[in-house]
Amino acid sequence: MAKTLKLKDLARMLGGELKGDADYVVASVTEPENHTPGSISPLWEKKFLRRVKPGAVLLTKRGWMPEGCFGVETDDPRRSLVDLLNFFSSSGPEVPKACGFIHETAVIDDSAVIGDGVYVGPLCVISHGAVIGDGCVLDGHVWIGSGVRIGSGTRVEPGAVIYDSVSIGRNCLIHANAVIGCDGFGFMPDPKTVLLRIPQIGTVTIEDDVEIGSCTSVDRATFGETRVLRGTKIDSHVKIAHNCRIGEYCMIISQCGIAGSSTVGNGVIMAGQSAAGNHAVIGDGATVAGRAGVIGDIPPGRVVSGFPAKDHRLEMRIQALMLELPEMHRTIRDLKAKIAELESGKQ
Amino acid sequence: MAKTLKLKDLARMLGGELKGDADYVVASVTEPENHTPGSISPLWEKKFLRRVKPGAVLLTKRGWMPEGCFGVETDDPRRSLVDLLNFFSSSGPEVPKACGFIHETAVIDDSAVIGDGVYVGPLCVISHGAVIGDGCVLDGHVWIGSGVRIGSGTRVEPGAVIYDSVSIGRNCLIHANAVIGCDGFGFMPDPKTVLLRIPQIGTVTIEDDVEIGSCTSVDRATFGETRVLRGTKIDSHVKIAHNCRIGEYCMIISQCGIAGSSTVGNGVIMAGQSAAGNHAVIGDGATVAGRAGVIGDIPPGRVVSGFPAKDHRLEMRIQALMLELPEMHRTIRDLKAKIAELESGKQ
Amino acid sequence: MAKTLKLKDLARMLGGELKGDADYVVASVTEPENHTPGSISPLWEKKFLRRVKPGAVLLTKRGWMPEGCFGVETDDPRRSLVDLLNFFSSSGPEVPKACGFIHETAVIDDSAVIGDGVYVGPLCVISHGAVIGDGCVLDGHVWIGSGVRIGSGTRVEPGAVIYDSVSIGRNCLIHANAVIGCDGFGFMPDPKTVLLRIPQIGTVTIEDDVEIGSCTSVDRATFGETRVLRGTKIDSHVKIAHNCRIGEYCMIISQCGIAGSSTVGNGVIMAGQSAAGNHAVIGDGATVAGRAGVIGDIPPGRVVSGFPAKDHRLEMRIQALMLELPEMHRTIRDLKAKIAELESGKQ
Repeated sequence: MAKTLKLKDLARMLGGELKGDADYVVASVTEPENHTPGSISPLWEKKFLRRVKPGAVLLTKRGWMPEGCFGVETDDPRRSLVDLLNFFSSSGPEVPKACGFIHETAVIDDSAVIGDGVYVGPLCVISHGAVIGDGCVLDGHVWIGSGVRIGSGTRVEPGAVIYDSVSIGRNCLIHANAVIGCDGFGFMPDPKTVLLRIPQIGTVTIEDDVEIGSCTSVDRATFGETRVLRGTKIDSHVKIAHNCRIGEYCMIISQCGIAGSSTVGNGVIMAGQSAAGNHAVIGDGATVAGRAGVIGDIPPGRVVSGFPAKDHRLEMRIQALMLELPEMHRTIRDLKAKIAELESGKQ
Repeated sequence: MAKTLKLKDLARMLGGELKGDADYVVASVTEPENHTPGSISPLWEKKFLRRVKPGAVLLTKRGWMPEGCFGVETDDPRRSLVDLLNFFSSSGPEVPKACGFIHETAVIDDSAVIGDGVYVGPLCVISHGAVIGDGCVLDGHVWIGSGVRIGSGTRVEPGAVIYDSVSIGRNCLIHANAVIGCDGFGFMPDPKTVLLRIPQIGTVTIEDDVEIGSCTSVDRATFGETRVLRGTKIDSHVKIAHNCRIGEYCMIISQCGIAGSSTVGNGVIMAGQSAAGNHAVIGDGATVAGRAGVIGDIPPGRVVSGFPAKDHRLEMRIQALMLELPEMHRTIRDLKAKIAELESGKQ
Repeated sequence: MAKTLKLKDLARMLGGELKGDADYVVASVTEPENHTPGSISPLWEKKFLRRVKPGAVLLTKRGWMPEGCFGVETDDPRRSLVDLLNFFSSSGPEVPKACGFIHETAVIDDSAVIGDGVYVGPLCVISHGAVIGDGCVLDGHVWIGSGVRIGSGTRVEPGAVIYDSVSIGRNCLIHANAVIGCDGFGFMPDPKTVLLRIPQIGTVTIEDDVEIGSCTSVDRATFGETRVLRGTKIDSHVKIAHNCRIGEYCMIISQCGIAGSSTVGNGVIMAGQSAAGNHAVIGDGATVAGRAGVIGDIPPGRVVSGFPAKDHRLEMRIQALMLELPEMHRTIRDLKAKIAELESGKQ
């Protein structure tokens, strides 16, 4: 059954200020422009205030409630939204995974060690010598290779493939069809085989609290390890190549590609479809804009965009001037003509 | 067994005009430049006429048959090709899926509702409360989460993962290793956890006649729904982020990325590797060229290219001028010198 | 147990020259900047010499051993690394696959033909009429469609989906969650259905010694075949569209997209996130730089970059000039002012 709560109780729950109808019953969350009866709409960006229709019920910032609307005002409505969503999230259709349940169709090697309260769903494979920590959830259709170690409280969703010897920390979330520990892409010219395969004998280490998106791959190192440090969140369709080191608490957005032996500092944001070339070094706290392509080194804290990635303000200036290229081209032609005229007049 | 038919029968089937050998036996379809005996080659783009070798057997446009070739001419040879391929398609090696068949290795929760004539292949999982419409085909290795609803006549291919509570319409085609309904990528700064996960309590709704490509992901909404409207065709490796709304009868080509809360109108074409940023709005009938990156709004019917995406003619003009940059640079230097000369002459 | 060997034995194994402590015991391989006791670090790029710390044990080029380091020098240290990695690779946690083993949970159609010494892991599906060559390894969770043919010695990793009628050669390596033979993306405008599906009745042929990366897809042809020639190595997240022909011994790096009916010659390198448009033709030995987008034809041996892809030196020149655009813009403005002045002076 879907949960509900009254606006006055919601205001109390969020530590916010009630504005208007205290007994309005909140049953769902909607976007401000699609407000429906019984819903509340979060709004934390001032520019979206103009989209709000009269009568909307809003969760917004103190002092922002528009004329003709009511709801709750808080200091940080985005943060309050998280609390609100957490309240509603337990009302979804998902059935909680039973603790300590192993589905009869799971294929588990006798040598594997399964912790307490682990859920192993249908058709999972857990290979030789794998160690699954307490309270892990393997939803089903999950592949765990030989010698894999997974820390407590980690969840692996359907279709994810964890190759042999990979190590995953605690409280991680590995989404559907992610691939961790596949051989890195390493070949060298060779007279006999043309392209000689470089054995990839390293591994992948994923630290605690990391999230790996659906259809994302993290390749094993040629030797040593590819490492994703704690708290980093990786979106879908991302490629992390062999021997990369991704820092703590980074956000790597969808379709980003990080080439071999790159180093990404702590707290770095790499936006969608961005990339880093081989051996790139991105400093702590840097932001790589969408579609930017990093070659070489980026100093800490820098915001870069474009390809090759450069200081964002410079890139913006260049983008603006590219729009003026037709005008520049015309002006040059005119100047050329005028100078020719001046020169002929001089003669 | 492979099917064959005589050229005269093919001409009749396609409502076209026979040109030459009526009794030539057509057994396969090839490209014009790789014509082999017994094959027919479709040709609907005039520029490819030059690649045709003498003796080729063509399915082409009325009046186009080159000297020394024969075959069938129709008003719309590309449309005729579809009929031709449909004729041959039933001769492939594929074994038709038996109606009303459930493989003994499929894992189906007792509470799931399976319609009439459904095919459930080996090692599928159908979870609690899922509803599978009449005549659906789940090839095998398919994951259907709790509370999922799939309309009649939809096919889900191996390795596809449909998360809890997702709704899929009728006559859809979900290709291998596609992922529908994974959590959207939502985090916010937080003093305690550094990156606080924003619960994603929404869902995904896929309407009728939609196609979702292999290794493509459509994320669930933070709240409300991510929605793909009827008839839209999505290619492989595409990312549709949380809370997007994709219109009717769009074509979204491979490796395209559509960021959170974007709105794509009806009949939009997004070509390969293109992208739309957060909260982008793309009008009905717009075309986003390959590799273009949309930021902000695109009016209906507009053709855009480049990054940031702009009017296609302007982008073409800028591209052309970029090739002239070396010349422009030289000219500016020359002009500078000449002016210096003129100025010194003046003094 | 991990393997070890003494430096003098390593020097002999690699045909190199011992420099320093003959009895140093080598137990692992590390990067030069992360050298640890018991490890050896390969170094074949001179620019990385500066990163080496005193006391490091190196596998490097003849004559390069820095003061205060020791190790082995060889003619080609990168090639020697392959031998070294091959030595260590058998010490990993991976359990060798038993020859001629078929897991009891594999679902194999009676009509399938399984060669000698084949390993079929848990929860694989092998469909009607498939033929699996001698010595193949299907790790587990692998989908083999009807009529698929796989040559001897090929390995297919978990989650890979091989669609009906696809042909794969000998000694290939298909990585996790790759998809081969999915329908090509073909639609045409149609008054009745809006977007009419063009049947994809062709197939995919993968020749010998080919590698297909994780989460990569190779689509089946509309008719005829999509073909990847022998020895070509394809990285992860790559899209090869219908009717492409990829030459021998190419390297196609991650997230590359090759659109329909493109032809890629022999020995071509397509770097990360690059692309080729429909009907592109890339000549033998060409190199397409990272993020480059090929439209039309590229002559053999050419190095191209940018989008649209052009001669790499021209692109580099244009990139450099774009950085000068602000200066060019200022200069034009100045020149305009000066000419106006000159003109007024003339009057």
